[in-house]
Amino acid sequence: MSQTLAYDNLFNFVLQVFLQMGCNTEHATLATQVLLSADLRGVDSHGVARLSGYVRLWEAKRINAKPNLKVVYETPSTAVVDGDAGLGLVVAPFAMQVAIEKAKKVGTGWVSVKNSNHFGIAGFHAMMALDHNMIGMAMTNASALVAPTFSIERMLGTNPIAVAIPANNEPAFVADFATTTASNGKLEILQRKDQEAPEGWVQDANGQATTNASALKEGGAMLPLGGDREHGSHKGYALGSIVDIFSAVLSGASYGPWAPPFPAYVPMPQNMPGEGLGHFLGAMRVDAFRPATEFTDHMDNWIRRFKTAKPAPGHEKVLIPGDPEREMETTRRKEGIPLFESVVADLIGVGEKMGISFPH
Amino acid sequence: MSQTLAYDNLFNFVLQVFLQMGCNTEHATLATQVLLSADLRGVDSHGVARLSGYVRLWEAKRINAKPNLKVVYETPSTAVVDGDAGLGLVVAPFAMQVAIEKAKKVGTGWVSVKNSNHFGIAGFHAMMALDHNMIGMAMTNASALVAPTFSIERMLGTNPIAVAIPANNEPAFVADFATTTASNGKLEILQRKDQEAPEGWVQDANGQATTNASALKEGGAMLPLGGDREHGSHKGYALGSIVDIFSAVLSGASYGPWAPPFPAYVPMPQNMPGEGLGHFLGAMRVDAFRPATEFTDHMDNWIRRFKTAKPAPGHEKVLIPGDPEREMETTRRKEGIPLFESVVADLIGVGEKMGISFPH
Repeated sequence: MSQTLAYDNLFNFVLQVFLQMGCNTEHATLATQVLLSADLRGVDSHGVARLSGYVRLWEAKRINAKPNLKVVYETPSTAVVDGDAGLGLVVAPFAMQVAIEKAKKVGTGWVSVKNSNHFGIAGFHAMMALDHNMIGMAMTNASALVAPTFSIERMLGTNPIAVAIPANNEPAFVADFATTTASNGKLEILQRKDQEAPEGWVQDANGQATTNASALKEGGAMLPLGGDREHGSHKGYALGSIVDIFSAVLSGASYGPWAPPFPAYVPMPQNMPGEGLGHFLGAMRVDAFRPATEFTDHMDNWIRRFKTAKPAPGHEKVLIPGDPEREMETTRRKEGIPLFESVVADLIGVGEKMGISFPH
Repeated sequence: MSQTLAYDNLFNFVLQVFLQMGCNTEHATLATQVLLSADLRGVDSHGVARLSGYVRLWEAKRINAKPNLKVVYETPSTAVVDGDAGLGLVVAPFAMQVAIEKAKKVGTGWVSVKNSNHFGIAGFHAMMALDHNMIGMAMTNASALVAPTFSIERMLGTNPIAVAIPANNEPAFVADFATTTASNGKLEILQRKDQEAPEGWVQDANGQATTNASALKEGGAMLPLGGDREHGSHKGYALGSIVDIFSAVLSGASYGPWAPPFPAYVPMPQNMPGEGLGHFLGAMRVDAFRPATEFTDHMDNWIRRFKTAKPAPGHEKVLIPGDPEREMETTRRKEGIPLFESVVADLIGVGEKMGISFPH
């Protein structure tokens, strides 16, 4: 870590970058907020570390800074949104808002999105539902890095699932996880440090288990949650597939191995069966099932019971999904966001390109 | 395996048992069909092997053979069903039908169920949606056998998730899996054979990894999908928790460690926060997102592409979720259902108790 930057300073820098790309103020502000929510919550791989990647996609004309976001198909509880090749960082919140409005009217809302791009952390979008006393869900497909069980071909992205569930006095339950053993971000950190990966994270080009964190660069693949068949990798493969189908086959986005790659230097796949990346967003009013306070009081009870489950020796307590990220956000809002040397260099480069000075 | 029985013979026996319990003909037929769908699909742990367990629950008056199934709360896209302590085998299809009817009207239907019992295989209920060109989902909570990450206390059931997705010419995609590394059924088979379990399936009473397949009987616990923290067990824990909350906190069933136990000899938990077991069923019309044949044609394309993904050395091909179970069903409908000696003895015992002779 070379530098720690106050959230507001980082926010202003990123905001200027998005404005410079041609986003209007509303979109630039939202995109910045979504992107930095990853840095705040400690998901460093999905925050400003990716800003230069977005800029390169924009330079390659794969990202449209002035998208015309619209609902192109709908029923009372569903919709398909065309992201018009916009930043996923603004397309996904638009779609989530559509889901929330539908949930207000008929109890739940489900929106599949096509023609989008990387949407940051899934958790941000799912959590939009919380203010409305709704359960939120968000998933997205992504460039293929993951081999299905029994395969050596990369067919799926790390395809995350986020589910946010409101409580009353307790903080919300917020699960947000890749459907692989480990996230690509964690793998990248090991590569950077030249360390080995635990078994079950990756396989080599021949499908053999390996602890080589750079196996991906050498033709290997990431593994679905479970790792191998004996430990349930077919379940992780099924989960990643469900995310791919809900996000891209339902909407008309490009699925499976045809998902558009995030690095702008990787050529687009041939014969894409759909448009851009896909997402799937859902919102369920809790009072569509039982009176809201009845539900949130029971969630308090659920959370307290799980928090006080007997810890294993060497562990202080059981965590509720979302606890570590919320604590990290509190710390980083106060103490600032630590940035790797390489990320700072990357951001300075973006700034120079766009004529914006990096804060220090 | 001591005996192989034709499906029809087994069906008639089980039907008589449910009729003898007092189920009406419609319920008895449906319960038999759901229960035996597990045996047909090769999920032997959830089929007739459990019949004596259902009978004991009925004898203990925990199962009501004449339930008054009803919707007790609803919006256009949601409902809560009270199972009136009925067999989950009939409560869940009733609830799924409610979800399907709502989906016909507003695009999707989501039903949370309380006051139910074990519902057989989740896949059966999810697959009910397929005939309507809908995506089906089914999940259920279950008696606590699984320790959350960092805990030694059993807090969750094996809480399965099933998702069935229709295709056009290809068979449907049908995922159906416990949110643990391995199902309890597989563990029971290892116990019966006195074999060791792979690492990552169970932990002992002190939270240490163990290969002792009987660790559960000695105060240990099953592990969430992922196995340990390094391999993503917090994701399996989150998935099992989501199933618990959707099935039981949304509906008003009893959740977490308070879920009612399946073995009738285990006393009911103290201070249960809800009624009985919970399920969550969902149906989404595919034409609520895009024209139906457009979707199912793309699903054909998805399935064919994944089926022909490059296999790893030593493997013939990549499987699509649901393939093995469908092939098993074809075989067993033709060749009969093989039953373990112990299961046959168990069924003969049930027959004697109910005055029904077991076919041979």
